[in-house]
Amino acid sequence: MKTSNTLIATLRELPAEAVIASHQLMLRAGLIRKLSNGLFAYFPLGLKSFRKVENIIREEMDAIGALECRPPVIVPGELWRESGRWDTMGAGMLKMKNRVDQELVVSPTAEEAFSALVRDELESYKQLPLTLYQINTKYRDEIRPRYGVMRGREFTMKDAYSFHTTAESLDKTYLDMEAAYKRIFKRLGLSVIPVSADSGAMGGSGSEEFMVESAVGDDTLILCPQCGYAANTEKAVCAADEALDKNGNKQVATELPIGKVPCPGVETIAQMEEFFKMPAQQFIKVLIYKVYNSELDLRNAPGGQAWKREMNQGAPHYPVSFFAVAIRGDLEINEAKLAAALKASEVELAEESDVIAYSGAPHGFVGPVGLTKVPLLADLSVMKQKEDGSYEIYLHDTVTGGGSADVDNIHVEPGRDFTPYMTADVRTVLAGDKCPHCGAEFYSKKGNELGHIFKLGYKYSKTMNLTYLDENGKQQAPIMGCYGIGVDRALASIIEEHHDENGIIWPMSVAPYQVAIVPIKYDGDMKKYADELYEQLTKMGIEVLLDDRNERPGVKFKDMDLIGIPVRIVVGDKNLPNVEVKLRNEKDSQLVPVTEAGEKVFSIVQSALAELR
Amino acid sequence: MKTSNTLIATLRELPAEAVIASHQLMLRAGLIRKLSNGLFAYFPLGLKSFRKVENIIREEMDAIGALECRPPVIVPGELWRESGRWDTMGAGMLKMKNRVDQELVVSPTAEEAFSALVRDELESYKQLPLTLYQINTKYRDEIRPRYGVMRGREFTMKDAYSFHTTAESLDKTYLDMEAAYKRIFKRLGLSVIPVSADSGAMGGSGSEEFMVESAVGDDTLILCPQCGYAANTEKAVCAADEALDKNGNKQVATELPIGKVPCPGVETIAQMEEFFKMPAQQFIKVLIYKVYNSELDLRNAPGGQAWKREMNQGAPHYPVSFFAVAIRGDLEINEAKLAAALKASEVELAEESDVIAYSGAPHGFVGPVGLTKVPLLADLSVMKQKEDGSYEIYLHDTVTGGGSADVDNIHVEPGRDFTPYMTADVRTVLAGDKCPHCGAEFYSKKGNELGHIFKLGYKYSKTMNLTYLDENGKQQAPIMGCYGIGVDRALASIIEEHHDENGIIWPMSVAPYQVAIVPIKYDGDMKKYADELYEQLTKMGIEVLLDDRNERPGVKFKDMDLIGIPVRIVVGDKNLPNVEVKLRNEKDSQLVPVTEAGEKVFSIVQSALAELR
Repeated sequence: MKTSNTLIATLRELPAEAVIASHQLMLRAGLIRKLSNGLFAYFPLGLKSFRKVENIIREEMDAIGALECRPPVIVPGELWRESGRWDTMGAGMLKMKNRVDQELVVSPTAEEAFSALVRDELESYKQLPLTLYQINTKYRDEIRPRYGVMRGREFTMKDAYSFHTTAESLDKTYLDMEAAYKRIFKRLGLSVIPVSADSGAMGGSGSEEFMVESAVGDDTLILCPQCGYAANTEKAVCAADEALDKNGNKQVATELPIGKVPCPGVETIAQMEEFFKMPAQQFIKVLIYKVYNSELDLRNAPGGQAWKREMNQGAPHYPVSFFAVAIRGDLEINEAKLAAALKASEVELAEESDVIAYSGAPHGFVGPVGLTKVPLLADLSVMKQKEDGSYEIYLHDTVTGGGSADVDNIHVEPGRDFTPYMTADVRTVLAGDKCPHCGAEFYSKKGNELGHIFKLGYKYSKTMNLTYLDENGKQQAPIMGCYGIGVDRALASIIEEHHDENGIIWPMSVAPYQVAIVPIKYDGDMKKYADELYEQLTKMGIEVLLDDRNERPGVKFKDMDLIGIPVRIVVGDKNLPNVEVKLRNEKDSQLVPVTEAGEKVFSIVQSALAELR
Repeated sequence: MKTSNTLIATLRELPAEAVIASHQLMLRAGLIRKLSNGLFAYFPLGLKSFRKVENIIREEMDAIGALECRPPVIVPGELWRESGRWDTMGAGMLKMKNRVDQELVVSPTAEEAFSALVRDELESYKQLPLTLYQINTKYRDEIRPRYGVMRGREFTMKDAYSFHTTAESLDKTYLDMEAAYKRIFKRLGLSVIPVSADSGAMGGSGSEEFMVESAVGDDTLILCPQCGYAANTEKAVCAADEALDKNGNKQVATELPIGKVPCPGVETIAQMEEFFKMPAQQFIKVLIYKVYNSELDLRNAPGGQAWKREMNQGAPHYPVSFFAVAIRGDLEINEAKLAAALKASEVELAEESDVIAYSGAPHGFVGPVGLTKVPLLADLSVMKQKEDGSYEIYLHDTVTGGGSADVDNIHVEPGRDFTPYMTADVRTVLAGDKCPHCGAEFYSKKGNELGHIFKLGYKYSKTMNLTYLDENGKQQAPIMGCYGIGVDRALASIIEEHHDENGIIWPMSVAPYQVAIVPIKYDGDMKKYADELYEQLTKMGIEVLLDDRNERPGVKFKDMDLIGIPVRIVVGDKNLPNVEVKLRNEKDSQLVPVTEAGEKVFSIVQSALAELR
């Protein structure tokens, strides 16, 4: 391709709206343009790299036997009502009605569509296992779309769905996917951190995220320097750490009864430390949460009878319920872990009026004792319910909210003065906490999720009535897995990892063109040799961009560096019959006889590609 | 690929909902499945052919220098407000609002998006001409989606947009596109009928549709057997035909004044012929139309002051206006031609209350005389306004509605008793009408539009403020063209043209697999030779489907015929060391030594591909 025949839309200015390197460079190199907030168009050079990312993903999916399909992007809302996610997906899902009042959804993901398609085809166990995938347009109505295509509203995702007769069969596909994902990221030149949801559990993980480090990442990763444990903060667990009293000794159970202490204005943990002259480690903090779509059965829980239980759509669930959550005073509650523990789609801190209605006290004075209108969840920093129903107690002689305004309780003994409805690990693990596997101190990084593999279990096959006949002619529901990779985000992440102050440095596998030929002037001998090299390399199957523009050499060099073409051949009068060969990721160039340049560059490209395999 | 590793989802039953061959066969061969009314998913085999169609289109677009981009599918409604089409696209455009109340559109076409993108890039005449295209998802909310992907709601379209400094430059790209389209359809194995909008005009046509014949086609084509004139009935014109009186003589102007004849119940043309004992050719029929978004300037037209003229969005237009249309009694008004003549987005027959309000008479008694509240358009069958403002009169001594209930007028002379606000050709041309170029009698066919190339002129560049600086540093608007092909519809049309009672007969260029190898039993020597042939052909670059299923031979043959693989190799004990080679489009097979079968089949595939080039 000659530059005059494609769209070179490089920008000298740094686009004001772009704060991360990939967003800046994709705009400056003319790979993308913004059409609206979170909506981007790929220009020809950007689309070339985009397609290469797509194709690498496609090849690796095909290689493990996944079959590509293409459901529509617009799907009937009816399917989402069947699965129950019509109500639980929130405002991020773009819904509409068409001219005949049919509810439609712009697919944010496609568990429903694939389940519906397979449901109609599936008859016998002989058809399983089956893995289908698509690489197709998705839309999520991000509240704050930013960082370019790293977090756009419309994006392209590879999403695969697998269907199995047994958990072992799902395990096998899951492991195939894991291996395929690792090959994909290697071929894309991406360093990923695989993050398991529960890598400590026996029998393999049920969920693994593939993250890339990013200063503006959506996610926080908790990493162990010793044993390799890696988890998203939304899932991370840590070793229990011993809570100490004000003298640095183990806390000891008290015999004293609860005492009420008036403490107007003492609302925060810091104020309590000051007031009681005790460390936050000896306090219990209780927060009231509003919980959406919990699938727990709360009929026998305190207050459970007050909330509506929805039985018709999806699994039985409570569209809205409330929980009190108790945690050690120096720790924070992680809402993602809390939602998971409550089998809820979302949790948020309750409004003050609800806090008072459910706990009797305003925020800051809510306590764990005497709650009757709301179930109490205690974090494992406070206590843990054992198999036999009894409790392991980790805090003693604690100070808590008093359950009415301006009062705190002292000498509160967990287990003696209150028992929770349930216990669960909901604390936010931080750098410095200890690894539960090896005891080393965690460190943390910000990251973005590029891919996710996940065992869905029976959620969709049961709610959407997928069945097959097993060897004995008995109806069974298949067990499912799902596996996603964001194409745009992978592309942007490659640039995040491979760039310098002059522009992008494409890995050979995804460069829009592998080689740039830059004649100092596209005229006379320089034109002749440039054209010959172009012909020769193109015939060898190399993708070449010939800069035939009538621009100063400096402008052309700058553009090719910005666009990030891996190999540059400069054809200049001064050096002929030699040409200059320079790699984008190396500082120095070398002079090569023009007669040898073709072969030389061909082998550079081939070995760079081979390295990424 | 082995059949056991892909998704063979053939159906023996004829799907009840499918009435045309392509819809039936795409379902039966397991190429597609319906997810909802007008929303289809491609299964692996269908997607393979779909991608081949896409790639052929892509190659031919690239070959003429068009550059592939990828705007989002979801675009801001704001752009459609700028062009004025937010209001004029009708209910077929799927609109919605997102969580921050932004108006969004699921792209039905992309003039706006491409105009907006180019607007931001375009500075100098040096950047032009420029042709951009995408192959991307579109959505149109068809009232009656049917015939499978032939007329679905979501579909994939290749749409290209070109930008030029001069009409000559546009002409060149337009002709390049025309040639590219012909190559595309040839490569797809499709017989298309190119249909010009105004092939008679000098200096090339401004619009050309590429149609395929179809019994259930959306369009009616008017074709001349002699000179090759071909037009969509929405555009077709014919030679003026002489209107005769009841004695078969030329009509003669009358000196008699208008006479009023009471004729209660005489409403239809047939009733009038009976009542007046005169042929319909001597009547003038007048219908009142409700007109949407006319861009005519009606400020001085009868009734024109009564309608709101919208000045703010797009070109000045009347969201609603009304017209009376007069035509010879035996002819029909073509609403597409009428809308074009009125520069309107849509016209429909007015409701009875509006008919009475605007004409003074109910439907059936509306006449051309004395209309003051509505402008009158006379079809060229009645009269034609000449350059000097005077009229050529084609009907004389006519009978018309009397302008009040139950009354007709006789002795009405066009020009004497009424003059129209405008004259235009709005009649529906039929088979049997005469070609305006050579005089031969037209015949007609039903067809579907596969592609359309169209000179847009300045419509979008002016409404959306696209400009560039010309050689003299003066701001100019570029002239534009647009060029579309429906991918799904092309795929379905290939099947319409290439099938028999046993299934699809794919052209080699778009077959999901080029060769099927069917061992009678996948075992022993048959397995060995089948595997060897599979290896050999795959290495040669041939796409092979090996039927390794444990099914009866008849089932496998039927499936391969239904799926339509062009070449079948049967490996059976009985014939070894020969194998049977059969072409899907031929009745007889031949025995070939297994050692020669690979080479033989390779050359069959190659020559079939070459034929389609």
